[in-house]
Amino acid sequence: MSELRLDPLSREWITIAARRIDRPVTTGVAPAGGGLLCPFCPVPPGASPEMRATSEAPRGDYDVAVFENRFPSLGGPDAGMLSAGPFATGYRLAPGFGRAEIVLYSPRHDVHLASIPESRVQLLVEVWRDRTEALYADPAVDYVFPFENRGRDIGATIDHPHGQIYAYPFIPSRVAREVEQVRSHREEEGECLQCDILRREQREGRRMVDQEGTWTAFVPFAPRFPSEVHLVPGRHAGRLAELRGAEVAALARLLRRMVRRYDGLYGSPMQYMMCVYQSSRAPRPADLWHLRLAFYPLYRAQRRMKYLAGSESGAGAFLQDALPEAMAADLRGVAM
Amino acid sequence: MSELRLDPLSREWITIAARRIDRPVTTGVAPAGGGLLCPFCPVPPGASPEMRATSEAPRGDYDVAVFENRFPSLGGPDAGMLSAGPFATGYRLAPGFGRAEIVLYSPRHDVHLASIPESRVQLLVEVWRDRTEALYADPAVDYVFPFENRGRDIGATIDHPHGQIYAYPFIPSRVAREVEQVRSHREEEGECLQCDILRREQREGRRMVDQEGTWTAFVPFAPRFPSEVHLVPGRHAGRLAELRGAEVAALARLLRRMVRRYDGLYGSPMQYMMCVYQSSRAPRPADLWHLRLAFYPLYRAQRRMKYLAGSESGAGAFLQDALPEAMAADLRGVAM
Repeated sequence: MSELRLDPLSREWITIAARRIDRPVTTGVAPAGGGLLCPFCPVPPGASPEMRATSEAPRGDYDVAVFENRFPSLGGPDAGMLSAGPFATGYRLAPGFGRAEIVLYSPRHDVHLASIPESRVQLLVEVWRDRTEALYADPAVDYVFPFENRGRDIGATIDHPHGQIYAYPFIPSRVAREVEQVRSHREEEGECLQCDILRREQREGRRMVDQEGTWTAFVPFAPRFPSEVHLVPGRHAGRLAELRGAEVAALARLLRRMVRRYDGLYGSPMQYMMCVYQSSRAPRPADLWHLRLAFYPLYRAQRRMKYLAGSESGAGAFLQDALPEAMAADLRGVAM
Repeated sequence: MSELRLDPLSREWITIAARRIDRPVTTGVAPAGGGLLCPFCPVPPGASPEMRATSEAPRGDYDVAVFENRFPSLGGPDAGMLSAGPFATGYRLAPGFGRAEIVLYSPRHDVHLASIPESRVQLLVEVWRDRTEALYADPAVDYVFPFENRGRDIGATIDHPHGQIYAYPFIPSRVAREVEQVRSHREEEGECLQCDILRREQREGRRMVDQEGTWTAFVPFAPRFPSEVHLVPGRHAGRLAELRGAEVAALARLLRRMVRRYDGLYGSPMQYMMCVYQSSRAPRPADLWHLRLAFYPLYRAQRRMKYLAGSESGAGAFLQDALPEAMAADLRGVAM
């Protein structure tokens, strides 16, 4: 059970889903015998009934697997209310509908986006694409958001390589804010803001990191995170479903190389958020949004975290340690 | 040197200040002899010239001390540019003016807001007030923001009890967003949104945590952080400078009690951000903003961090584990 509450000061919807505190926090490679089992590792043949019960892994072999999170932070398919009123007049709350899916990248525990085969990364992109369209088929879903939290420092409680797909019954506030800018740019300049940005980046060149097919990877002009990179297709497409086969394959190659660049940057696995920004279920006009993927790394140097503290989380003013042009040069320079 | 860059997708100003990576990360109580010295601890009599050089602590005794950060994340008083163009047309950047001050709560290393005397917390509020007005005297300053990052998990690199005061040459995005809501509520309902919220909270009562003088402390209806609490004065005032002496004293008492509640909640020092939201330098109309302080704790249970991951940082959709009404009851129930 969960519910949505509107913050009257920011007009952001907050999702409240109780009892997630009990979700499993297990680690390590699946043991052959007893002991702690990673809930995303295949259940070994001789596993106890208890181990079988706590596992969330699919039975049998697979390449990429998707299933509903057993401990969802969103409401699940059955909308409900968590709390009992009466509430003071003026506040808005709504049933906490939503979907939270887990995407396993591999049955293996010790791999990651850059070490699994390219064909499997391509399959992952296809899974994002297919699940997005399937979730958008439900008119209660306003926004589908595939993402990955990689590493303990960003709060991933399970080390097994996986991402997530959230389906929200509203447009999340950061996305809504960008949609507004995209819309006003279209009105004022008569063209897509992201197409415009992409052209600026290609012209200026100094923040370019990589290219593959029609895709460009660059450090944005004003990043929020250290060595943040945006991946943008050259052709104006709003969702993964609008991509051609060759564009999907090129994205898969670019994603793998980006993770290798990040892991090479400070000589250890980068901890990051990776987000897929697609158009909402019912964009108006339909061709407004331009698909983008973004990496938000957490480290600003070797083992030096970038914290979202008072200035960032409290005021909304992000601070950076390094010039975007220097970040881009460092990422380009990683030995591949 | 630093500079400001406008993110065209979110219209947020990002501050880039290079070389903060070298700032000191020292810990522990000041040693009587050699070894590592906390840069905020008084320099001991027999200190080496090297230790004297790395110390940022004021000489002599004091109650509360304020000074400019030697490693500011904002630009400092001399506006400058960090990078050399040419940049692609369409991007906006500006000299990185800004001020970053450190506020030491005590010469002692092992104290905190709740363990220093009430008179000193009152002095701290007066320091926030006086520095706010002094910084606003500079017309280049648009927003003054006193805050505290408490604890390693929020990135405080120095354990010595201290807060900070930032002066931005723009209205930070989260503040700007709230100003917009306050303005439209005033236009539509004819009254202050925060006054309205305060009345709702007092009427409903279930999210109330504490009261002192005209101040009310409550868990907001839709919090972003676990056990988030807002402190709001009953009288409509926009800045600390508009408070009467008794209101300052009451705030000091309430602040100390809040920190004791947080430290008692899970039986260990709470790590949090504490933020002071005042009106901007030139609010239009002048009486629009209603002063507020906010605590944003990081723990959602004992030693369980709330991470700002994909959904929060990437999409702007915050998720909560617990009902605000239950959080408020827990905070009320802490043995004082």
